[in-house]
Amino acid sequence: MSKYAWVTLATNDSYSLGALVVAHSLKRVHTEHQTAVLITPGVSESMKTKLRAVFNVVEEVNLLDSKDEANLALLKRPELGVTFTKLHCWRLTQFEKCVFLDADTLVLRNCDELFEREELSAAPDIGWPDCFNSGVYVYTPNMETFSSLVQYAVTHGSFDGGDQGLLNSYFSDWAHKDIQKHLPFIYNTSSVATYSYLPAFKQFGQNTKILHFIGVAKPWLQNFNSETRKVYVPSECQHLANFLQYWWDIFAEDVHSRLSPDMSGIAGALAQLHLGEAKSKEQEAYEEHMRRQCWETGNIDYMGRDSFDNIWKRIQQTINTGSCMEESSEASVAQTTAPGTTQRASRRPSRSRSATPKRDPKDRSPTPQPEEKISVDKKEGN
Amino acid sequence: MSKYAWVTLATNDSYSLGALVVAHSLKRVHTEHQTAVLITPGVSESMKTKLRAVFNVVEEVNLLDSKDEANLALLKRPELGVTFTKLHCWRLTQFEKCVFLDADTLVLRNCDELFEREELSAAPDIGWPDCFNSGVYVYTPNMETFSSLVQYAVTHGSFDGGDQGLLNSYFSDWAHKDIQKHLPFIYNTSSVATYSYLPAFKQFGQNTKILHFIGVAKPWLQNFNSETRKVYVPSECQHLANFLQYWWDIFAEDVHSRLSPDMSGIAGALAQLHLGEAKSKEQEAYEEHMRRQCWETGNIDYMGRDSFDNIWKRIQQTINTGSCMEESSEASVAQTTAPGTTQRASRRPSRSRSATPKRDPKDRSPTPQPEEKISVDKKEGN
Repeated sequence: MSKYAWVTLATNDSYSLGALVVAHSLKRVHTEHQTAVLITPGVSESMKTKLRAVFNVVEEVNLLDSKDEANLALLKRPELGVTFTKLHCWRLTQFEKCVFLDADTLVLRNCDELFEREELSAAPDIGWPDCFNSGVYVYTPNMETFSSLVQYAVTHGSFDGGDQGLLNSYFSDWAHKDIQKHLPFIYNTSSVATYSYLPAFKQFGQNTKILHFIGVAKPWLQNFNSETRKVYVPSECQHLANFLQYWWDIFAEDVHSRLSPDMSGIAGALAQLHLGEAKSKEQEAYEEHMRRQCWETGNIDYMGRDSFDNIWKRIQQTINTGSCMEESSEASVAQTTAPGTTQRASRRPSRSRSATPKRDPKDRSPTPQPEEKISVDKKEGN
Repeated sequence: MSKYAWVTLATNDSYSLGALVVAHSLKRVHTEHQTAVLITPGVSESMKTKLRAVFNVVEEVNLLDSKDEANLALLKRPELGVTFTKLHCWRLTQFEKCVFLDADTLVLRNCDELFEREELSAAPDIGWPDCFNSGVYVYTPNMETFSSLVQYAVTHGSFDGGDQGLLNSYFSDWAHKDIQKHLPFIYNTSSVATYSYLPAFKQFGQNTKILHFIGVAKPWLQNFNSETRKVYVPSECQHLANFLQYWWDIFAEDVHSRLSPDMSGIAGALAQLHLGEAKSKEQEAYEEHMRRQCWETGNIDYMGRDSFDNIWKRIQQTINTGSCMEESSEASVAQTTAPGTTQRASRRPSRSRSATPKRDPKDRSPTPQPEEKISVDKKEGN
């Protein structure tokens, strides 16, 4: 067995879908190394079973129950909850070296050469490129490093409230010391399209090895047609069409068949769809609502925790009553605005836009809570 | 005299305002080195005189008249006009080493240490950070390099249609070879604010040495109050408030007094304002129209060539007739949309938005044309 591992993190069942696709994308490019996933209590028992079938290591990070130094530190700085979760990857000392991959990445080619790099190697962030993006990084598991990171976090906090700010402050010589620690951008190609990004993407994008779906356009939040197995690609993501479809190809071929309806959020909903069959009324309603929620308003919750459950409940209501909802009832559903949604949000009539509460970028819940399980009688839709 | 020089480029009188502020910002931080500006026929005679009073070297780049190899090459690839203009900086062989600064940069601290770096040193671009941003770079003037760049351009073109794509293809080992050629981002801090930019800007922004006003929010397109000498800072640029005010402080103290009304575009208009005095009717109309044009619609022309003249004509009309224009006549004015204006554009009622033609990001005029001179009888406004 390899002493190296790819490590990811899932805080709920929706992100677990991402983690599963990451793992299968690694298998498809024939990695020689192991896979590990850190999970929090937000992941359902049913999903844990599925993860154990795919990953070599499933490591539970239960901050609430643990009595370790990270938890004690967290009591003083509860706002750093999610940040601390990711730091636990340094505790996987059964491995000599690891590459961390966010659950919203997708491996397109074999990248085993990354394990030749040293800690901390990462690609530049597109926001402030003297910082690295913490979605993909090479590191060496080590309990002393873990303790040191925890102490650093307690003392200094994180300038962006997340792991990226903390890790950049801790590994502060990344920008200017060693070019070998600058991973080429093709190992963590961000999916957002800015003015100067698109021509470069056209020039270099075909070399991408790992795509990172940053921001709100998570693959599992896209509208998927279960009959044709095709994802609907929003106009502003057309340059990502092949990558989004590849994510859903992996989902359809490697992930979907082992999902259970008792999983939470989107995972449980997708489990109930029959791929390649004529669309049920339920599927059509699901597609219609995903389309309206995700791409007309852009107001879907970033973590997929809150609003998906509301969508799904409304799908049930729609199917049960056979009626369309009034826009006023739509507006009353609690929604949060994720960053980067301005363009899509602008399509919504302005009279309803002002009623939508804005999400503060700093508003990161300390510890992700379990998604509400969706109680659905499968027979009613089929 | 120093053998080193700061070099900038002005293609019309509006960008010359930027070039003048760049030169004065360098003097304020007591640079020991010379200053040079490349100009094209778009710069008026009156402005040339002003530039010669401030820069050590004013080098005219007249592609239309020249018979050199760059011009011959350009005949085959007319779309590369603006790109070729910037390449002429390599012909300033009277200097041993230079730092190129775009006219929309602002030097905040002494950066003479940049001349210790070698060609080609530059900071990463925020769009695709394995490319450098070509707004600030250290280079060595050399006719062979110039010829080689021209030949490369003719053979390969530019993947983004501009100098940045060309220079990145030519200096293609920048990203991964030598960390010394990666200038810290504080030497070319981009002014746009993305999700991950703002926390980093808050953390590191106070160290900025050179600010780069990329995109449409050029300092000279901001609304300036001549009475108070304060610039109105749009809400989305609040993090840049001090930098924008500093640009206008330099303008008011070092540039304004020597402007002439016979200069083109914004330069000629600003020449007619009386700083520190009670606002004239003309100034009030100017402010009102700048506010509406720049920040309500976001549709001002990127190069400041086309729409400013229209604005100014309408200022005259307004003053002459004393009447407000109908929105229908506003919409009929030829406007172009610059990239990155979505948020501001969204404030405009949707019924008029669809009438605004979109500017293709690739739509770069081959050679900048002179701005239309504004014929104004000063007495009418005062």
